[in-house]
Amino acid sequence: MEPLAHTQSAPGTRRRARDLGIIIGRAGTGPLNAITDVPGVRVGHTTVRRRPDVHSGVTAVVPGAVGPRTPLPAGVFTGNGYGKLIGTTQLTELGTLETPVLLTSTLSAFRVADALVGWMLERPGCEKVQSLNPVVGECNDGFLSDIRARPVNDEHVRAALEGASGGPVAEGCVGAGTGMGALGFKAGIGTASRTPDLGGQRFTVGVLVQANFGGTLRVFGRAVTPQSLGLSGEPAPAQETGSCMIVVATDAPLDARQLTRVARRAVFALARTGAAYSHGSGDYAIAFATGPGAGAPAADADLGPLFEAVLDAVEEAVLNSLLAAVTTIGFGGRTLKALPADRLIDALTGPAAPPGPDDRPLPGH
Amino acid sequence: MEPLAHTQSAPGTRRRARDLGIIIGRAGTGPLNAITDVPGVRVGHTTVRRRPDVHSGVTAVVPGAVGPRTPLPAGVFTGNGYGKLIGTTQLTELGTLETPVLLTSTLSAFRVADALVGWMLERPGCEKVQSLNPVVGECNDGFLSDIRARPVNDEHVRAALEGASGGPVAEGCVGAGTGMGALGFKAGIGTASRTPDLGGQRFTVGVLVQANFGGTLRVFGRAVTPQSLGLSGEPAPAQETGSCMIVVATDAPLDARQLTRVARRAVFALARTGAAYSHGSGDYAIAFATGPGAGAPAADADLGPLFEAVLDAVEEAVLNSLLAAVTTIGFGGRTLKALPADRLIDALTGPAAPPGPDDRPLPGH
Amino acid sequence: MEPLAHTQSAPGTRRRARDLGIIIGRAGTGPLNAITDVPGVRVGHTTVRRRPDVHSGVTAVVPGAVGPRTPLPAGVFTGNGYGKLIGTTQLTELGTLETPVLLTSTLSAFRVADALVGWMLERPGCEKVQSLNPVVGECNDGFLSDIRARPVNDEHVRAALEGASGGPVAEGCVGAGTGMGALGFKAGIGTASRTPDLGGQRFTVGVLVQANFGGTLRVFGRAVTPQSLGLSGEPAPAQETGSCMIVVATDAPLDARQLTRVARRAVFALARTGAAYSHGSGDYAIAFATGPGAGAPAADADLGPLFEAVLDAVEEAVLNSLLAAVTTIGFGGRTLKALPADRLIDALTGPAAPPGPDDRPLPGH
Amino acid sequence: MEPLAHTQSAPGTRRRARDLGIIIGRAGTGPLNAITDVPGVRVGHTTVRRRPDVHSGVTAVVPGAVGPRTPLPAGVFTGNGYGKLIGTTQLTELGTLETPVLLTSTLSAFRVADALVGWMLERPGCEKVQSLNPVVGECNDGFLSDIRARPVNDEHVRAALEGASGGPVAEGCVGAGTGMGALGFKAGIGTASRTPDLGGQRFTVGVLVQANFGGTLRVFGRAVTPQSLGLSGEPAPAQETGSCMIVVATDAPLDARQLTRVARRAVFALARTGAAYSHGSGDYAIAFATGPGAGAPAADADLGPLFEAVLDAVEEAVLNSLLAAVTTIGFGGRTLKALPADRLIDALTGPAAPPGPDDRPLPGH
Repeated sequence: MEPLAHTQSAPGTRRRARDLGIIIGRAGTGPLNAITDVPGVRVGHTTVRRRPDVHSGVTAVVPGAVGPRTPLPAGVFTGNGYGKLIGTTQLTELGTLETPVLLTSTLSAFRVADALVGWMLERPGCEKVQSLNPVVGECNDGFLSDIRARPVNDEHVRAALEGASGGPVAEGCVGAGTGMGALGFKAGIGTASRTPDLGGQRFTVGVLVQANFGGTLRVFGRAVTPQSLGLSGEPAPAQETGSCMIVVATDAPLDARQLTRVARRAVFALARTGAAYSHGSGDYAIAFATGPGAGAPAADADLGPLFEAVLDAVEEAVLNSLLAAVTTIGFGGRTLKALPADRLIDALTGPAAPPGPDDRPLPGH
Repeated sequence: MEPLAHTQSAPGTRRRARDLGIIIGRAGTGPLNAITDVPGVRVGHTTVRRRPDVHSGVTAVVPGAVGPRTPLPAGVFTGNGYGKLIGTTQLTELGTLETPVLLTSTLSAFRVADALVGWMLERPGCEKVQSLNPVVGECNDGFLSDIRARPVNDEHVRAALEGASGGPVAEGCVGAGTGMGALGFKAGIGTASRTPDLGGQRFTVGVLVQANFGGTLRVFGRAVTPQSLGLSGEPAPAQETGSCMIVVATDAPLDARQLTRVARRAVFALARTGAAYSHGSGDYAIAFATGPGAGAPAADADLGPLFEAVLDAVEEAVLNSLLAAVTTIGFGGRTLKALPADRLIDALTGPAAPPGPDDRPLPGH
Repeated sequence: MEPLAHTQSAPGTRRRARDLGIIIGRAGTGPLNAITDVPGVRVGHTTVRRRPDVHSGVTAVVPGAVGPRTPLPAGVFTGNGYGKLIGTTQLTELGTLETPVLLTSTLSAFRVADALVGWMLERPGCEKVQSLNPVVGECNDGFLSDIRARPVNDEHVRAALEGASGGPVAEGCVGAGTGMGALGFKAGIGTASRTPDLGGQRFTVGVLVQANFGGTLRVFGRAVTPQSLGLSGEPAPAQETGSCMIVVATDAPLDARQLTRVARRAVFALARTGAAYSHGSGDYAIAFATGPGAGAPAADADLGPLFEAVLDAVEEAVLNSLLAAVTTIGFGGRTLKALPADRLIDALTGPAAPPGPDDRPLPGH
Repeated sequence: MEPLAHTQSAPGTRRRARDLGIIIGRAGTGPLNAITDVPGVRVGHTTVRRRPDVHSGVTAVVPGAVGPRTPLPAGVFTGNGYGKLIGTTQLTELGTLETPVLLTSTLSAFRVADALVGWMLERPGCEKVQSLNPVVGECNDGFLSDIRARPVNDEHVRAALEGASGGPVAEGCVGAGTGMGALGFKAGIGTASRTPDLGGQRFTVGVLVQANFGGTLRVFGRAVTPQSLGLSGEPAPAQETGSCMIVVATDAPLDARQLTRVARRAVFALARTGAAYSHGSGDYAIAFATGPGAGAPAADADLGPLFEAVLDAVEEAVLNSLLAAVTTIGFGGRTLKALPADRLIDALTGPAAPPGPDDRPLPGH
């Protein structure tokens, strides 16, 4: 195995959606346009790569001082439950998150959860903890990686947790995004943020996605496929065993019920990007608030701008996950090609297609 | 009050999305591109209009010989539960539908349900029925209609049920669609169908929507607003109290759990059309199968084409609901303008907008 | 039809469980041992009786100044959803109750909901209300009453709402309890309360049940049947179409998620009384808090005594619903016999039965 | 560490509830009165004990040839979700179980799930499996065992799976039951079965419980505590971090929705035994059918006897879990005393207590 590539990679040189002039919605972004714009939220990646067979990893979203004694309000929504999201029932019952959220590869999820438990038990203040609800999501990287090897281990988890930091977030083929593919292209981790007003006060909402789902990419509503962009070679796989894990963080003073409403919108937003929500796709969102907030809880009637912000940020984060990823040759020589930014822009600014059938292939065809 | 306009209006002279060359997805449609393509499904409308104050009505989706002794497999999904969908808990517990599905105006929903009970108790074979679970959805037509008058009565309900028929389905300002508005324009009832393959066999799936939700219309991913189309006058309301009721019918041999999965996709599809899923929007889908089918139940792994078909059909049905509706002046002189088909086509085929902020207004702005 | 018997009947002369020495749990009760011990909660009944065919009615639980502008935190649990509980989805989405809770007869539920809407629209402050989520539960009184006549009307609903008062609550054959039967005996409305400590502060929790469910009565764990008490005549019906509606009120500062946890325990408690939770039984609980409270929200870890209090109070309320009811001859001459208090006490204090099969009849046997 | 005590211990010499004349309900039991009466169901235990600190283990319920290619219909109910039940969302989405169900100690659950994945990937026919949904439940044995050591490892899991067999099931302090305590006494694994008629055909339903929950034991409705039985010493702990995992198996031809209904009754049944359903108790039931059945699916209206059977079997299984367990001195010298069968019988057959307060201590008192 190669040495750990990085626990927090430097932001790539590739351009993000917004750099290309693709602006989703009209609400402003945080300074980094990343989940780390939410105060206290840190992100760490461990990329686990052993060419040509292993393209995997783990990503940690660490909300400040979360722990069993300092749980945070949280909600979860299962859009399509073909996935192994660990920690769902307790999170739902108590409405709280008590560990960082880890994302990884499907068959590695349980050892990653075990490693998270081990790490948490060693935290200061956890010396007497006898119960802990680790939250671990996963997507299936079996197309590009030897998933059955369950390559993500305790050391990798610790590196992601301890390397988590604020600041820019590495996107694309990094951490849990290493082996991901979505909408016909190589994908990975993506992030974005918005700063909506709720009841006259400005808050930040940030999202991070691990994008691995099927469908046909839509950018500004236009269908974009490898074929339509002139990419040669075999078509991407149907990704019937894909998934999309979405993590939403906010400093708005929301309770668990409201965060569940937020989580629902995060999954709905995938439809904008062209998601097929296929049978085998585990589409989940976890939303947490970084604190109960100093003031009164938000009123539901004020949530409109926040809902809109989440819809926009998820759409943008998915685009970012595609634009940051690079073409990858993986297990068995299987290849996923990157979305070429220049060709994408050409396609978006070229002559408009007349109304007509879009290019979405039917699943299985 | 005017005489009942029609219990089944003739299809309007306005063009549907497909007539304009707006083709969603690549799967074929049924012969009518309507929910009535599903064998046995009939639709009836009673428009309740008393100018200028009342623009309301009731729409019945009648699946063959449904009744408490001949229930049909069914599932429901609540995307945003700010609505009064009657019949949810029993439908979910038993996984069955035992009455037609009625759609109407919010505050009239309960008297409509009572009328449905009365009508059902008179059906042959129901002489000893002591329990019945009427299913009634609603959207809020209070912008254009005097909703507090609760104008939909027993006679209207009976007319919609008894006038229900197969064949083309009236869309737009008819029945429960009379007072609807969506995505900035006058809206109403819309329908569409698809004929996906499941496991090598062709089935039909049809949808009918009562569209009344906020957001910014996206057609082929382009934002379309009254302003962008050059419509003068005051902007449409925020529709914070809107809703979208979606009814999905299929002759595929699905069970209740699978129909719940189908219902979820129906709500997800609204994101493609620009839905804001705002706090006050009751976004629901009910899906039923017209029979257990002669053959084996469908395998979940075969559902992909059906899921895609539902996503496409809902998107198209929403467009149809807009294109069929006509500009309406209602209660207090409030007006909702129709989506002008010619200007829409001009906008879609004109020079492409450069990538940049789309025109979605923020809620509350 | 007889004149309305009473909108708030005087407490009966029959003894309650506690008067017989049947004390459930060790927590204290409120002064009335009734849901009206919770400050602000009022109860009103309209009994609708026209001998021999109609034994029905409506019961209103009115939590202070509840309304669409002053909603209360609330949660609901569906133990078995074979029932028509109106208002569920919005209550769950928003976590609030915005009308009184009405209980009535199954097929009358929808006209009762319509009447509740009408009454609410006339309340001060509701002049502009265009959306309202009435909450109406029901049980099936078709064994004793001509349920298909849907005898509960607008006038009855208004009488129950306007006659609602604090103070002692009439139990047994009154209001929505008029035609009820449970566990082999005539049953009806029952109530009880407890005053648990949460985090060092004393609160009140009150419950009201509309008991109509099958099974074999267990008192202090002993099976008690009409046969074992020497009652002659035909056995009671299987009550396959029965239900149990439970309303829980508390002045503890709980949020919607916590109230959902409370509602779950209310349904669980039915098992103590011998409930069969049969296929056709609509077993629901609605729990609301009378206010957000002056202080901090309750911590989940402090809820244990409240959960225990709810388990105990529901068990006692069911016993009270049986003990207060009187033998009733109804529709078609069908009869439900009252639980005779003296024979019950004899049975409980007589020689212990040796361990052995209890007397619970199997459903359908 | 001691050598593995046994992967399938011989049935203990202690008497079961039925041997003591405690007969719950009137339906018959299978020949073993155990979950293994359901054809094809096997049970294996690995007890992990290292005196005095470790009293833990793992129990496997293996339904025939279950696997990702041969999933079984299944449903789950979360009574109180303070637990880490792994596999819930996929089981619910697809309505299927694709691995054996393992039960273990809370903090070991994730490494047990990882071991289950490893074992499954090696099964014949699983050579190409890239996705797997292991189902692992847990209870907290931290009172008697050094739970933070996470003592259950890969070897233990394999031993339980490979040692699983039909025939009598070891109960009490064995496998996942080793460190359990319930209702004031030492507890553990318990099992029971019933043979209800559904639509004129006899089926078997079996349950297995890992009992670890708080409350006050009720036997035939009488409260039974260590104090009331004259046991000296310190009272048992409040078990606020307890749980009850219930596994239900049946050969009746039920689908996932129906099995979810069955699972709900399993949790409800705990109320009969005196469960407190406290805040910290993870109360779950998983129900599966061993096959789709040769004939038609069961009708919901026929489920009554099955529901009753589950209520009875769970009650009896909990009693069996108590009666089979032996007094255990554990971590830090903490002790849980066994329920003495002879004293229990004396209490049940002795002079009846007059009606009066039962002995249930309030939580926290």
